[in-house]
Amino acid sequence: MANPSFVLRAIKDVAFENRDIPKLRDEYEVRVQIAQTGICGSDVHYWQRGRIGDFILKSPIVLGHESSGTVVEVGAAVQNLKQGDRVAIEPGVPCRRCDYCRDGKYNLCNDTIFAATPPWDGTLAKFYTVASDYCYKIPDSMNMEEAAMVEPTAVAVQIAKVADLRANQTVLVFGCGPIGVLCQAVAKAYGARKVIGVDVVKSRLDFAKSYGADAVYLPPKPDQGVDPVEHSEEIATMIKQEFGLGEGADVVLECTGAEPCIQTGVFATKKGGTYVQAGMGKENVLFPITTACIRALVIKGSIRYTKGCYPDAVHLIATGKIDAKRLITNRFKFEEAEKAFELVKAGREDVFKVIIEGVQS
Amino acid sequence: MANPSFVLRAIKDVAFENRDIPKLRDEYEVRVQIAQTGICGSDVHYWQRGRIGDFILKSPIVLGHESSGTVVEVGAAVQNLKQGDRVAIEPGVPCRRCDYCRDGKYNLCNDTIFAATPPWDGTLAKFYTVASDYCYKIPDSMNMEEAAMVEPTAVAVQIAKVADLRANQTVLVFGCGPIGVLCQAVAKAYGARKVIGVDVVKSRLDFAKSYGADAVYLPPKPDQGVDPVEHSEEIATMIKQEFGLGEGADVVLECTGAEPCIQTGVFATKKGGTYVQAGMGKENVLFPITTACIRALVIKGSIRYTKGCYPDAVHLIATGKIDAKRLITNRFKFEEAEKAFELVKAGREDVFKVIIEGVQS
Amino acid sequence: MANPSFVLRAIKDVAFENRDIPKLRDEYEVRVQIAQTGICGSDVHYWQRGRIGDFILKSPIVLGHESSGTVVEVGAAVQNLKQGDRVAIEPGVPCRRCDYCRDGKYNLCNDTIFAATPPWDGTLAKFYTVASDYCYKIPDSMNMEEAAMVEPTAVAVQIAKVADLRANQTVLVFGCGPIGVLCQAVAKAYGARKVIGVDVVKSRLDFAKSYGADAVYLPPKPDQGVDPVEHSEEIATMIKQEFGLGEGADVVLECTGAEPCIQTGVFATKKGGTYVQAGMGKENVLFPITTACIRALVIKGSIRYTKGCYPDAVHLIATGKIDAKRLITNRFKFEEAEKAFELVKAGREDVFKVIIEGVQS
Amino acid sequence: MANPSFVLRAIKDVAFENRDIPKLRDEYEVRVQIAQTGICGSDVHYWQRGRIGDFILKSPIVLGHESSGTVVEVGAAVQNLKQGDRVAIEPGVPCRRCDYCRDGKYNLCNDTIFAATPPWDGTLAKFYTVASDYCYKIPDSMNMEEAAMVEPTAVAVQIAKVADLRANQTVLVFGCGPIGVLCQAVAKAYGARKVIGVDVVKSRLDFAKSYGADAVYLPPKPDQGVDPVEHSEEIATMIKQEFGLGEGADVVLECTGAEPCIQTGVFATKKGGTYVQAGMGKENVLFPITTACIRALVIKGSIRYTKGCYPDAVHLIATGKIDAKRLITNRFKFEEAEKAFELVKAGREDVFKVIIEGVQS
Repeated sequence: MANPSFVLRAIKDVAFENRDIPKLRDEYEVRVQIAQTGICGSDVHYWQRGRIGDFILKSPIVLGHESSGTVVEVGAAVQNLKQGDRVAIEPGVPCRRCDYCRDGKYNLCNDTIFAATPPWDGTLAKFYTVASDYCYKIPDSMNMEEAAMVEPTAVAVQIAKVADLRANQTVLVFGCGPIGVLCQAVAKAYGARKVIGVDVVKSRLDFAKSYGADAVYLPPKPDQGVDPVEHSEEIATMIKQEFGLGEGADVVLECTGAEPCIQTGVFATKKGGTYVQAGMGKENVLFPITTACIRALVIKGSIRYTKGCYPDAVHLIATGKIDAKRLITNRFKFEEAEKAFELVKAGREDVFKVIIEGVQS
Repeated sequence: MANPSFVLRAIKDVAFENRDIPKLRDEYEVRVQIAQTGICGSDVHYWQRGRIGDFILKSPIVLGHESSGTVVEVGAAVQNLKQGDRVAIEPGVPCRRCDYCRDGKYNLCNDTIFAATPPWDGTLAKFYTVASDYCYKIPDSMNMEEAAMVEPTAVAVQIAKVADLRANQTVLVFGCGPIGVLCQAVAKAYGARKVIGVDVVKSRLDFAKSYGADAVYLPPKPDQGVDPVEHSEEIATMIKQEFGLGEGADVVLECTGAEPCIQTGVFATKKGGTYVQAGMGKENVLFPITTACIRALVIKGSIRYTKGCYPDAVHLIATGKIDAKRLITNRFKFEEAEKAFELVKAGREDVFKVIIEGVQS
Repeated sequence: MANPSFVLRAIKDVAFENRDIPKLRDEYEVRVQIAQTGICGSDVHYWQRGRIGDFILKSPIVLGHESSGTVVEVGAAVQNLKQGDRVAIEPGVPCRRCDYCRDGKYNLCNDTIFAATPPWDGTLAKFYTVASDYCYKIPDSMNMEEAAMVEPTAVAVQIAKVADLRANQTVLVFGCGPIGVLCQAVAKAYGARKVIGVDVVKSRLDFAKSYGADAVYLPPKPDQGVDPVEHSEEIATMIKQEFGLGEGADVVLECTGAEPCIQTGVFATKKGGTYVQAGMGKENVLFPITTACIRALVIKGSIRYTKGCYPDAVHLIATGKIDAKRLITNRFKFEEAEKAFELVKAGREDVFKVIIEGVQS
Repeated sequence: MANPSFVLRAIKDVAFENRDIPKLRDEYEVRVQIAQTGICGSDVHYWQRGRIGDFILKSPIVLGHESSGTVVEVGAAVQNLKQGDRVAIEPGVPCRRCDYCRDGKYNLCNDTIFAATPPWDGTLAKFYTVASDYCYKIPDSMNMEEAAMVEPTAVAVQIAKVADLRANQTVLVFGCGPIGVLCQAVAKAYGARKVIGVDVVKSRLDFAKSYGADAVYLPPKPDQGVDPVEHSEEIATMIKQEFGLGEGADVVLECTGAEPCIQTGVFATKKGGTYVQAGMGKENVLFPITTACIRALVIKGSIRYTKGCYPDAVHLIATGKIDAKRLITNRFKFEEAEKAFELVKAGREDVFKVIIEGVQS
């Protein structure tokens, strides 16, 4: 087959198709043969619900956006890559012409072509074409699985960048899933004084503790009849006391999107400190705005990646500062893609990162 | 009488007392004879409810914290002031020794002595003693009423500082009370491209329009059965369209604390833009956190003042860039203090800033 | 003639040529019929010396880069402009793909196509083609001369941006030529507390005083045998005293490149203050590095423009905050271009900005 | 003896004196019995020349300012310390009242009482009194020699802070003396991508390589007749090539004050990058200002320490991230203080940090 592709045809309707080999759209593009692709919650979300925010599935799209591969065709103007180069692929290529792009905020570009975000095809195919400056050559020592893990690592690098994370800070991270533990590992690699992971799943805390966190915390369930926001404030106080955070953490990274975590995170942030919202859950949550005001907090949203995140993520993995491969718990052949998606959907505690091997040529 | 003082004895219980003339606590202090004192919502709040957050009235305090006056006694180590100097008084003197103080964030100091915040006495007395570096000499051209207005102006200057307000930005301000219109005037003085004021009271919008705002907006009431958050989002869209804000305002300053304003403000902020929470209302509000996340907003709380706010406010008033005196609608003698408080409590549309003259010697 | 052009063939050798009408290089470009073009020192520099830094004249180029005009042809993908639109042209279009471009620092891009910088043709022709996002539509109220003045105004806006200029600062500007006085006017429009202009030419100081500066200063000549650096330090002290700057100016903008100004500027900057080098003269100067160190100064270089400078400059001129047209002292027809260049070369005190009208169709 | 002290009586004239035990100046002070004191170049400078900048020896002062010790007396208002606490002493206590202090820039305070800076006595005595918030309790695991090394480590921490040093950056450090190698170690602890040390002494490079630097560089001597600035530019080019720095280092930390290093440092900084001047040598140097301008460099001076430097330095040493004790090459008894000073003055390659034990009680 020319270009076997794993296609989301409609909600809950996936199929393998043989598509045409994609052509380079301009002389700055390269064609990559995909080697490994991680599955992300958003992939599953489109599969099950057909939309995320304003992005709505209206026609079939190829799934997948966390990929590595080998360059097999190079546009005439490409200078940074040659055939045979092994690369990690940044999945969103912005328009380069809008105010956001020209200002270095290309993660906010409204016209980004983002893999597996409707109406754009993703990377779960034999071949994918992409702008060469959004492909990052990996060193020989890095394997293709690690290269696929550059994507979630880059997400964590961006979160750290948004948080303006610095050495010697105390960092409290809500969530010990892949992004959460990667944030913890990034914080540690950046010289954090103390990194604390919070999660409601014990096994995830154990993993976090063995990964990047100095300490972990399992929040108690609320007593009957307790006000949820008050409960959050109490937990924040417990966290501060248990870990000697004084008036709170310098930086809080919220990677769950869960309402109680958001509330607890705000209460646990030090006066003048920084809270980053990276997880996404309910559209609206009950939020302790007066506390945010009186404490002069800085609350920021983190989305996608900006310039430097991919190179930094490659560097962190290549030098062993972050052992990204250790997050991979389950591996599938390309033909087993649907099975892989089913596994992610199931949300089992012991499933961390699921990865799908590319089509073998 | 030695030191006539307007004292809050308990909730809803005020009285004039003759207190001792306060002594300088150290050689860096000065004693000021108070000339004019503005009344602020927080003064009324203590009077009516006896507490704001963790500050609880447990013993009588003198009220008042927005004051000007004349230096009548000077500590031995004071260098910046001499007897007879006319000054605006910054009402909070921090400990100077904690981490916040040493880091230039003295507005966050836990041990600040803040006028009329329990257990500290305020300025509605004949005399007040205060650290000399928290008194700012005013020019001869500035009168004592204007000097009392330095306090709310300094609040607006701090809000602008927190917002990192710059020239050529579009600035959307929720609330057209004293702090709101001062924020609008500060934004204009700082070279804002367009300043838009929002309020639910028509007369306040008219005033705002004649003061610092380029344009004003009266939000429509929600239709029956409309979801309040959706309504906020619709209003935000209307504001953006009506004023040509494209994807939103560069900066939003929320000076009301009202839930619908907070929601509308978040929706009206441009991707990557800055939203400052300055108003205080309900402790917790339903907050569009996913929008904040996806748009990579920067949300900050503003509280009190930091170094430079008072001198900047003095400068803005002294040079006529801000006509602070125009905000004063009602004037009272010292003996009429309770009447003045009653007027503020009533919350009439035509009452903007109420000011109380000091004890005449 | 199809496309009359004013060409620099070799050092000191200019001529009018009739060139082909330039074709759009891609579907994002527009073709502009040039209306007005200001002459800049760099144009004259290439004419007289054939090089600036690493940019060396090896083959003929069209001169000119400060231009306005009317869109006469529009690429298929252009959305922000249509035929007939009147525009100011940003003369440097970066590669959009390098790390600088992707990081919002496109002024540092090594592959920028910059008008009239070898080997790239400039705008002193009937037609010029350029990326549509580097053309800025001007309002009907703005004329073409003003639109040509957007370029130097944008240079001043970038200098202010590099300086992180804020309201209420004291700003000391060295140089009262076009860029110097525009910096002064920008500082004033941004709410500076006090703007002081320095120049060695009395008439320029008079102009500056009537334009954006609150005050001006004519430095005394050094006494015989005085060490030049010590003389600079003395002048800095005099400036600080004369203008009540206390320990120095908050911000110093150096727009001359002259060694004594650079030295004086460093000495005149407040501890922790910001000094921006915008003028260019000798490659190396004797520099008070220990003073810069002990005073914890922030010294920054400013070059070209970044995102937002052109729109801000258009806005400042369109709203009358900056009267850019007033800087134009001499006007020439297209056919008189060489005469215009001779006038700029002569460097007369009374010649400020020289502008050349485009070819009349 | 009550309070044996090592006193600089006049230039090149030191002596032991028995002074009075110093009294607490206010209730916030503590008295510390000094345990260990490192010697710094500035101590030797005052001894040999009697002045540094505006600080001139006019009357005898006790020498020494890099000290650790044990709290033996505690003022009534002190809360952070108790008798018996082992502490590192920050040697400069600012006025807390000037604009710099109130703005968090206390390193710039004009009225700082700085140990062993005329006219203030230093720490080379049995006892020293100091503000309690400028004493930092050290953990039990840290010994007094390490605690004395907190001072130079804090200098490096401040340099990193001024440089806004972040993870994943390439950092080029000029100088491999104590401050230089500490800067390298700090950069490494903060997650730098690559740290390169430069020095003209081979043995220092060897040490740096074994300490915090990933790589080191020994600059070649200039050929006869070569222009020194051009030579610096060539070396910068060599450094960039040898270490794969592309267009230059992200951050350059200049810790020598030597003119060729300053020049090379500027040429070796990437466009838009940051260069920090921390070393002090000649007052004025020939400086490539045009390069600084065209490359839009950010050049900053670093002096002393600000809030957080001491706690961070204590943390870095306590956790073993920085092995500060390894820098100590020579130890002396209190009575041998002059011998210790002679050794530092000699400037031998094998002498790194010299430390003097306090008076044994």
